[in-house]
Amino acid sequence: MAHLTTTGTGRPRLSSQALDLLFRQARTPGGFTDEPVGPEDLRALYELIRHGPTSFNQQPLRVLEIRSTGARQRLLRHLTDRNRDKARGAPLTLLLAVDLNYHEHLPVVFPHAPHLYEWLANAPEVRRERGRFDALLQTGYLIVAARALGLAALPMLGFDEAGLNAEFFPAGDREALLVLNLGRPAPVRRERLPRLTYDQVVTTL
Amino acid sequence: MAHLTTTGTGRPRLSSQALDLLFRQARTPGGFTDEPVGPEDLRALYELIRHGPTSFNQQPLRVLEIRSTGARQRLLRHLTDRNRDKARGAPLTLLLAVDLNYHEHLPVVFPHAPHLYEWLANAPEVRRERGRFDALLQTGYLIVAARALGLAALPMLGFDEAGLNAEFFPAGDREALLVLNLGRPAPVRRERLPRLTYDQVVTTL
Repeated sequence: MAHLTTTGTGRPRLSSQALDLLFRQARTPGGFTDEPVGPEDLRALYELIRHGPTSFNQQPLRVLEIRSTGARQRLLRHLTDRNRDKARGAPLTLLLAVDLNYHEHLPVVFPHAPHLYEWLANAPEVRRERGRFDALLQTGYLIVAARALGLAALPMLGFDEAGLNAEFFPAGDREALLVLNLGRPAPVRRERLPRLTYDQVVTTL
Repeated sequence: MAHLTTTGTGRPRLSSQALDLLFRQARTPGGFTDEPVGPEDLRALYELIRHGPTSFNQQPLRVLEIRSTGARQRLLRHLTDRNRDKARGAPLTLLLAVDLNYHEHLPVVFPHAPHLYEWLANAPEVRRERGRFDALLQTGYLIVAARALGLAALPMLGFDEAGLNAEFFPAGDREALLVLNLGRPAPVRRERLPRLTYDQVVTTL
């Protein structure tokens, strides 16, 4: 398996070049090439992230694929000026959201704990907090998975949250988390911002 | 670059076998082999995730490496019985936390927005919510990065949150997010739980 390598103990791991693509050389793009991101790319992306772990297999992340011109206009009006320009330049923009009623899937996706369904059904605030927790883990998987497919994700938080929720989720059953632009990244010219050192992040006890 | 492949448009992407290791065949392990996870493995893991995107480059995730027997005892007493057994069987357990004072690094990691520092310094609740948001994205990167190194992550939420925070963060400056066991995965014998379909997760507008 030439794309994989092994550690000294024979553990299969990604090669150095694959680690560069996913992590070490990956950058949040300033812009994208004109190469389109089609429906099949989004399907491929979901096939990668669908098995990612969530608590009790809850899978609360939902994705709005903003494909039509009309949907794009509805999205753009709730973004800050700067982010509106970024979204206009992206081949595809997704609105990532949390399904606040994710517990309704539990009888299928986590069938051996009926008490969990009952508990969450009666605790909307707990449900919301736990839903956001897992949907954000899933968003992390998605950002790395996009890179694995040769795409880059440009996440944006500069939006009118209440406006976006009223626009796309008037029933109040979902909440916007993040606007994510996807495309083949154009070369990044700016320098990386500083990152924290290992010793600033990790404490050994 | 034999470990990478390209799409029809020449976009570099991971090979099918690499995608299997990271996503399609990856499982949350039921147990681990005896192979140790050393300090150098954790350093390699941090080198992979350190550049991952966070809002305003905030990087709020902090990692407690529970390495000594004493630290392990302090952790175990706050876990549910079931999770205590799982942690006992793991080569290494991490306590992932959010640094509630991550804004103190902003003058270095995001130097061109001094107003952001001022705003966050005076808004502890906003700071907490945004810190948890980004630390969870970083946790998602970490779970995938562990797989890239041939390890597997077993995340656990079954712990006494107040107890764990009082034990490890008595100053109240950090909050526990997740307990994460790391090791080389033992073969998983149980079947996968059902995942949602593409059409249940993605809506095209």
